[in-house]
Amino acid sequence: MYDGAVQDLIDELGALPGIGPKSAQRIAFYLLGADAVDVKRLADAITTVKERVRFCATCGNVAESETCRICADERRDRSLLCVVEEPKDVAAIERTREYRGRYHVLGGAIDPMNAVGPDDLRIRELMSRLADDEITEVIIATDPNIEGEATATYLSRMLSGVGVAVSRLASGLPVGGDLEYADEVTLGRALEGRRTLS
Amino acid sequence: MYDGAVQDLIDELGALPGIGPKSAQRIAFYLLGADAVDVKRLADAITTVKERVRFCATCGNVAESETCRICADERRDRSLLCVVEEPKDVAAIERTREYRGRYHVLGGAIDPMNAVGPDDLRIRELMSRLADDEITEVIIATDPNIEGEATATYLSRMLSGVGVAVSRLASGLPVGGDLEYADEVTLGRALEGRRTLS
Repeated sequence: MYDGAVQDLIDELGALPGIGPKSAQRIAFYLLGADAVDVKRLADAITTVKERVRFCATCGNVAESETCRICADERRDRSLLCVVEEPKDVAAIERTREYRGRYHVLGGAIDPMNAVGPDDLRIRELMSRLADDEITEVIIATDPNIEGEATATYLSRMLSGVGVAVSRLASGLPVGGDLEYADEVTLGRALEGRRTLS
Repeated sequence: MYDGAVQDLIDELGALPGIGPKSAQRIAFYLLGADAVDVKRLADAITTVKERVRFCATCGNVAESETCRICADERRDRSLLCVVEEPKDVAAIERTREYRGRYHVLGGAIDPMNAVGPDDLRIRELMSRLADDEITEVIIATDPNIEGEATATYLSRMLSGVGVAVSRLASGLPVGGDLEYADEVTLGRALEGRRTLS
């Protein structure tokens, strides 16, 4: 519909996740009208991220050197290990400011429908970290959905003979939510995991 | 929250229209995991569009040379001129395949709330095209909202003494829509603009 370069950009933007043809067009015209400096900064950020960012050799989180910021941090508690699916889950847990241990990023969850099995995840690396390291507790923080639960079950079985404490993030009502609107499974979990107050 | 380059990319993506922090993060991680070739193609498309695309000297549409594809096309009807707000409106009308004339892109609509007046639009260029050219009908195809209507009213007044036929796109019920869900203004317009069947 458009001349070469504009259409090329719309096609490239439209291939990004969550961006449909209308959004792609909107962004393309925004870039056409934007300052050349700002547009260059965006193009550079895209190029730089591919050149500079890799995955931490220890935990699998995003990193700009051999080891990520968290693994390199000597103040982190080396006895605690939190297992998550993706680097963005690391960021989510870091935002709570409640956790002082380190992480292990699996790179996904067991998902037979999409042909992702245990061997496609960084589970072997996890087991060898547990053998070497001074870790005493593993917190399984996979997503509370079918794939995450399956992964948690698989991991807890794998870890049962290793001699570390294994825990799972609590499921229940989201804070600020409304009991009436909670789905049955969540409400069931909240009941099951109820805490004694007195 | 992330190391330098990832966070830079999330910030740059989050500055695009319609992309919030969650989408920006999702796209950044998608790019991190994507093929280097695909990512380079995106970065190149962004750079190229700024280098190569400009606005047609005649109509204001996007173009890769002095004159856009449509203005350069000798087969287009030179007596018809369709006035639109933005280049994307040209694309929308072209998609109908119902229009064989040429276009004039105003570059926006009169919008006093955002300090856009008639002098900020390409109205002077429109008037000089009408003086030189063999145009006999002007179709005002600004958006059917407050700003577009104000612009249409302003233009129809400006064009009243020029000696060309002036028309406006029809307002009414969208095809495939449901009468029950039409707003009162649209339904009022549809009544007002009703067509005799027999």
